[in-house]
Amino acid sequence: MSWNVFGRCLRMITFGESHGPAIGAVLDGCPPGIPLSEEDIQPYLDRRRPGSSRFVTQRREADRVRILSGTFAEEEGQKPVTTGHPVALIIENTDQRSKDYSEIRDRFRPGHADYSWQVKYGVRDYRGGGRASARETAARVAAGAVARKIIPHVTIRGALVQLGEKKIDRARFSWDEVDRNPFFCPDPVAAREWEEYLDAIRKSGNSVGAVVEVVASHVPVGWGAPHYAKLDQDIAAALMSIQAVKGVEIGDGFALAAMTGEEAADEIVMRDGEPHFLSNHMGGILGGVSSGQDIVARMVVKPTSSILRPRRTVTTSGEETDIVTRGRHDPCVGIRAVPVAEAMLALVLADHCLLHRAQTGQG
Amino acid sequence: MSWNVFGRCLRMITFGESHGPAIGAVLDGCPPGIPLSEEDIQPYLDRRRPGSSRFVTQRREADRVRILSGTFAEEEGQKPVTTGHPVALIIENTDQRSKDYSEIRDRFRPGHADYSWQVKYGVRDYRGGGRASARETAARVAAGAVARKIIPHVTIRGALVQLGEKKIDRARFSWDEVDRNPFFCPDPVAAREWEEYLDAIRKSGNSVGAVVEVVASHVPVGWGAPHYAKLDQDIAAALMSIQAVKGVEIGDGFALAAMTGEEAADEIVMRDGEPHFLSNHMGGILGGVSSGQDIVARMVVKPTSSILRPRRTVTTSGEETDIVTRGRHDPCVGIRAVPVAEAMLALVLADHCLLHRAQTGQG
Amino acid sequence: MSWNVFGRCLRMITFGESHGPAIGAVLDGCPPGIPLSEEDIQPYLDRRRPGSSRFVTQRREADRVRILSGTFAEEEGQKPVTTGHPVALIIENTDQRSKDYSEIRDRFRPGHADYSWQVKYGVRDYRGGGRASARETAARVAAGAVARKIIPHVTIRGALVQLGEKKIDRARFSWDEVDRNPFFCPDPVAAREWEEYLDAIRKSGNSVGAVVEVVASHVPVGWGAPHYAKLDQDIAAALMSIQAVKGVEIGDGFALAAMTGEEAADEIVMRDGEPHFLSNHMGGILGGVSSGQDIVARMVVKPTSSILRPRRTVTTSGEETDIVTRGRHDPCVGIRAVPVAEAMLALVLADHCLLHRAQTGQG
Amino acid sequence: MSWNVFGRCLRMITFGESHGPAIGAVLDGCPPGIPLSEEDIQPYLDRRRPGSSRFVTQRREADRVRILSGTFAEEEGQKPVTTGHPVALIIENTDQRSKDYSEIRDRFRPGHADYSWQVKYGVRDYRGGGRASARETAARVAAGAVARKIIPHVTIRGALVQLGEKKIDRARFSWDEVDRNPFFCPDPVAAREWEEYLDAIRKSGNSVGAVVEVVASHVPVGWGAPHYAKLDQDIAAALMSIQAVKGVEIGDGFALAAMTGEEAADEIVMRDGEPHFLSNHMGGILGGVSSGQDIVARMVVKPTSSILRPRRTVTTSGEETDIVTRGRHDPCVGIRAVPVAEAMLALVLADHCLLHRAQTGQG
Repeated sequence: MSWNVFGRCLRMITFGESHGPAIGAVLDGCPPGIPLSEEDIQPYLDRRRPGSSRFVTQRREADRVRILSGTFAEEEGQKPVTTGHPVALIIENTDQRSKDYSEIRDRFRPGHADYSWQVKYGVRDYRGGGRASARETAARVAAGAVARKIIPHVTIRGALVQLGEKKIDRARFSWDEVDRNPFFCPDPVAAREWEEYLDAIRKSGNSVGAVVEVVASHVPVGWGAPHYAKLDQDIAAALMSIQAVKGVEIGDGFALAAMTGEEAADEIVMRDGEPHFLSNHMGGILGGVSSGQDIVARMVVKPTSSILRPRRTVTTSGEETDIVTRGRHDPCVGIRAVPVAEAMLALVLADHCLLHRAQTGQG
Repeated sequence: MSWNVFGRCLRMITFGESHGPAIGAVLDGCPPGIPLSEEDIQPYLDRRRPGSSRFVTQRREADRVRILSGTFAEEEGQKPVTTGHPVALIIENTDQRSKDYSEIRDRFRPGHADYSWQVKYGVRDYRGGGRASARETAARVAAGAVARKIIPHVTIRGALVQLGEKKIDRARFSWDEVDRNPFFCPDPVAAREWEEYLDAIRKSGNSVGAVVEVVASHVPVGWGAPHYAKLDQDIAAALMSIQAVKGVEIGDGFALAAMTGEEAADEIVMRDGEPHFLSNHMGGILGGVSSGQDIVARMVVKPTSSILRPRRTVTTSGEETDIVTRGRHDPCVGIRAVPVAEAMLALVLADHCLLHRAQTGQG
Repeated sequence: MSWNVFGRCLRMITFGESHGPAIGAVLDGCPPGIPLSEEDIQPYLDRRRPGSSRFVTQRREADRVRILSGTFAEEEGQKPVTTGHPVALIIENTDQRSKDYSEIRDRFRPGHADYSWQVKYGVRDYRGGGRASARETAARVAAGAVARKIIPHVTIRGALVQLGEKKIDRARFSWDEVDRNPFFCPDPVAAREWEEYLDAIRKSGNSVGAVVEVVASHVPVGWGAPHYAKLDQDIAAALMSIQAVKGVEIGDGFALAAMTGEEAADEIVMRDGEPHFLSNHMGGILGGVSSGQDIVARMVVKPTSSILRPRRTVTTSGEETDIVTRGRHDPCVGIRAVPVAEAMLALVLADHCLLHRAQTGQG
Repeated sequence: MSWNVFGRCLRMITFGESHGPAIGAVLDGCPPGIPLSEEDIQPYLDRRRPGSSRFVTQRREADRVRILSGTFAEEEGQKPVTTGHPVALIIENTDQRSKDYSEIRDRFRPGHADYSWQVKYGVRDYRGGGRASARETAARVAAGAVARKIIPHVTIRGALVQLGEKKIDRARFSWDEVDRNPFFCPDPVAAREWEEYLDAIRKSGNSVGAVVEVVASHVPVGWGAPHYAKLDQDIAAALMSIQAVKGVEIGDGFALAAMTGEEAADEIVMRDGEPHFLSNHMGGILGGVSSGQDIVARMVVKPTSSILRPRRTVTTSGEETDIVTRGRHDPCVGIRAVPVAEAMLALVLADHCLLHRAQTGQG
């Protein structure tokens, strides 16, 4: 694995910058014979698309995906299937406005990749963040949609469980609510409160962070491996690879620090002739391997660094100054990170499905 | 990367089980010409060694490391140097007591890998946890000691910042305190409180979780990469690969959710002619690339699953029962995880040192 | 490395089929700051392009390459440079004639991938060979052109040294001749003889094999590694990955079997204060590592399997039949394999340039 | 994949030098539940062992392999099975004679890795060739023996088909003969001739090259993949990774250059209700994927570079001199390369067995 290749058996490489002609992903290792066309992918892109509410960036991108390779319909009019060869996905950039970004060329925006990338690479595509742009996540979502088709029996869902200081009430958690509000919020009461809260943030030119939770149901027992291919590890890597993510936890995560071994043990009984866990503090993963319970992961998305509040910084030539990042930004990038997190979880699980059958012949 | 190979350029593979003849690691890609002998590695193993206080397992292992390959002294009596070839490290197991573990053979211990591994592999080395044993981490610590030698200008330190419900007081944080108490605790007041606290836990046959913090200082600007080789991601993967770790965060981590963009921005000024950050909410990593600040990561270690309190479980043949895990266990495995976390951070940073100069020729 | 990712540090993934909308390559790990635009790549594609003489397929493809990502011009009008992010290259397919291939849908063409891929994948894009088509090599040539820019001091050249039964006369070998005839033949006398010879083959509806030689000059001492990253090994893998290649040799290759150790030893003397080899039987690689001499490799390309002579085969439903492969085929695919072999050698050497500086800090 | 890790799914790393305490291999990705003990591996090592006849080095090594990890016997006395965890194999070095090698410390032996490694690494373990020693191949043979157990239905055999200028007569080829002579020669008449021939070479202080052929029978249709995981490519890489190998060919290999498409086509008929090939010019691989025929590969092994004839060279301080390599050398290293080639082929095929079922779920 080098810089932009993600995955072990099923491998994704993404490419593209915010203001180049296109972004895309190539997915290698996809099993053959899976029905796949653009219609299977587009709905996921539509969920992530900018401009869908006032709580996300107002950039307007059609985000139409095109499959360039790796599928074939043996008969005309038939649904194409994957051929086992690389699936290349491309999304054209259509709403770049380069003029918006001229100001940031000579200043390092705090919280952004500007400074560290300039020093590392000696060159920086400052237009819209270039390669650092959240736009890159559209390629992930497209690839993730293909990954879902590899493991159709697994259900992968995501939700925003914290927006800034506001957490959901777990007692009101309902997956049905997630698509009924612009926040992917599973708690209808919280969703209403968040509107006002985030409006205030947005109007003040500020931003907030968030916590995203993703859950995979119906994962069979046995995916993952000890230690260096721990399912926890690969999920952590996958979620942490997303722009602006600074923390990941599995199951009860950081809350486990304060728990005793007695409390944290997920006890097992027999139910319907099968082992059944009485709790899921471990997030569905034991010893790095799925236990058959729901796999539960959370990630924290830092507040959008592009804000209208002036912050102190320096110029590329070493002068102190301050900066305000104008443009079309999300007051909380965590919102649109929900479909991205789902996609990354789908990629990890599909990868481990292949790995598991490679080693054991099962599945 | 498949199952047990960790790293991109600098690669470690570990092998061995708790009750086999030996555990070990092979490190591939080590630069040539680095002075290296067993004495460079042993002190790190000694820090992790079981039996060093009443707060860790009473298993007695000498944990003597032997270098089997990859070093050479051109003149007799000279210090050997690395040759650029694989460095194989081996540690013999000397204090296995197989009889201790006969009871767990037919029962799945809650919180352990027993159930998921049994289903996955169809076979399970139940003696001392087999491959799942924390004993494997000795191999990591040995390899990490070699990694440190690759980046001698980087200082890597770790500390226990939370033990069960007890957090340190950040105002009292001192690296000097870390090796003065049996907890790697940087707060001398907390360390004293923890003794009594953990004694009570231990005597009650229970265990608690913990939070480990690792910090790397003097990392140059530029290590890491966007997205799929984000330094945050590789650190997350490295720490999450450790047994019993269920969460990782970089910089302010999960606290960033409740912060605004204005608060979270690490502002930059000029100091001594160099860009200087006024805060480090991002943990020293911007856009996946090191910013020159301290790199700060934390991980949560779940409470030891092996406890003397009976928990409900099932047998391998599907009968309900309960289980008490006797043997020599750590009341808080988080303590001995401190040197392991340091080792994993060293491996990631040395790897990225090589990756960075591969791509840019710098360093 | 899984199925379609080639390289260790510098990694290429190619995608696309003969009759899909486009083929392409993504190159990951490219160093930043290298001037790069389409004009740097196009000449190499033009050398490989079909339809350039009567000795190659008459398919007409403009083979215009487009860079989709990974380059940036800081000033308008400036030459773009690489940014260190993935370089995506795309070439649209424009002259697909699907009707040409309808006959082969239900029959396995001998020598082709038809049978083995059908059994493996259960589905087969039979249009123009699908993913098996030599058209895929355009993506390699484009990526190889980028690789050359990473190691500008290295000269990589290729030539056809055997066409069917006809070998060149080594005494007449001249790199200057290579681009003066439609065969990339370095021997002007042989080139004239080959015209008549290959015309006869072509008119008889038959095809012949060939041997391609590639040479890299000015490779510094030290690229490569022992055993599992032997430069010989990576060159062998790179050349053998090309469609229709069934053999590879380095230096004197198979002729070394009949030589004695005394004859095969490349003796060393001092010249101009530097070690100088008196011969190059080893092809510029000692112990897997470049010696500073020319790197010399050869590969054999089997005769084009698509011929107008009827051959016995079976149908997908298991009936015996015979087949004639109509269409626009190369009477000797070895000819157009010359720029492909050069490209693959460039990719390997650029990869090892990065690997070498990763491990040693040199270069 | 970096420097010393071989394989895609099933991965081997080897370590160790000629005069270090031990050499070894770690095999990662081995399926669980495979009966495995030292007795399964030892016979293969015994075939490769030095000192077995006057035609190979007189170094005396017991070459006893020890399994350090990755196997477990659930009941005492039962045969252990693989657990799915890394299988570490170790072989102690017992007959190092360091004094033999003092002379070569300051001179670069022609044909050896001395010069290129010295420049690359700046340090060189000159004792017995260090990491370059053919001794490393014992680790490959041990790992290959494990690989064979993963694909028990596949038969892998090797033979020496050319020794110096002397080729076997294909009409007399018999696998039964291979173990009846000290050359792994499948032609009993040639074997007798070779004794006298190689005796003369040996007595004259010279050496010769050789060609090794390896054949895998009963490989199912479908292993391998197009292009960058072509079975031909992986076999080429595997064989070329062996010390002293400078060429590899599949099926008719280089002879295909002079053949026509008509001749080279392996025609297909139906036999017993199955497709049946009338010839095997392609060596059992079509489009990179196994066709169900025998897989046939050959490699050339250069003549041993360590000879008693003086050759010109330079010293490490740049003075011209000459060198005679005393010590215990093989007059033809190609002989002992036969079991090594078999082992590498076994590793490639077992790897592709896993890869194939990863992607397709077959097998």
